[in-house]
Amino acid sequence: MVLPDTAVERILDRHPVACLATLNPDGRPHVVPIVFARVGAMIWSAVDGKSKSSGTLARVRNIRRDPRVSLLLEHYEPDWTRLWWLRVDGEAEIRERSDAEAAAALTALSRKYPQYAEVAVLAPHGSILCIQPHDSRSWCASAAAIEALGAGAHG
Amino acid sequence: MVLPDTAVERILDRHPVACLATLNPDGRPHVVPIVFARVGAMIWSAVDGKSKSSGTLARVRNIRRDPRVSLLLEHYEPDWTRLWWLRVDGEAEIRERSDAEAAAALTALSRKYPQYAEVAVLAPHGSILCIQPHDSRSWCASAAAIEALGAGAHG
Repeated sequence: MVLPDTAVERILDRHPVACLATLNPDGRPHVVPIVFARVGAMIWSAVDGKSKSSGTLARVRNIRRDPRVSLLLEHYEPDWTRLWWLRVDGEAEIRERSDAEAAAALTALSRKYPQYAEVAVLAPHGSILCIQPHDSRSWCASAAAIEALGAGAHG
Repeated sequence: MVLPDTAVERILDRHPVACLATLNPDGRPHVVPIVFARVGAMIWSAVDGKSKSSGTLARVRNIRRDPRVSLLLEHYEPDWTRLWWLRVDGEAEIRERSDAEAAAALTALSRKYPQYAEVAVLAPHGSILCIQPHDSRSWCASAAAIEALGAGAHG
């Protein structure tokens, strides 16, 4: 069964990690985990910080060449009646943090992840990854999975 | 820092879930979560069962057209010093379960996941997805992440 809209919204706002697939220069898929925040319809992820020592991150180079991405949010636990996943397909771009939308995204990221106070990758200069979703697909194993998300009919 | 070989082996044997990226007909990346088992150098995942109601799974169609896949195993927790990920890039194929290698993989899957006893997708007929890795890459946030895996120098 698919996730109801209330559960999708809740997952996009609260789930802490996602797998971001981009396309390598040779067309191979490339997957990395990201932390992210949703602002309206857009999904944002910081890309600076640790990249300085090793040059530009592969995800950034890939997106600049081909913006097509697929983002997977999933929940695993030993009780397989509670499994769910949500996939968001879209186009990504690398934006400057100086514009107003990106500034709002940095605020959303620092609110969602208090950890950013310690790792200092949310400086107001530099770049940020922005995903514009154009399609999404979801699956959950049972109504129990939806209830566990706190997003049931009476959630 | 990268994960030591002992940690990589342990993760491939014990981590329960991975994100599998394949390529759609138009070249877009497509990501789904999978459960899997390692047998020697190969990674196996069951693909039958629930697919009957909705036709062939997209991952199966994609792999038959283009075998290039990327598999991500990752660990998230609020303590960001414990984060790690492992990516395995390789070629996948859809095999019949009747051959000896595939039969060993079914045994490994049912040993790793007692849940399969309830969901009956491990019948000896049908297909199974097999990944031949050709490259892997890993990252972990700190030595504490490796220790938490129980795969440190004295683990």
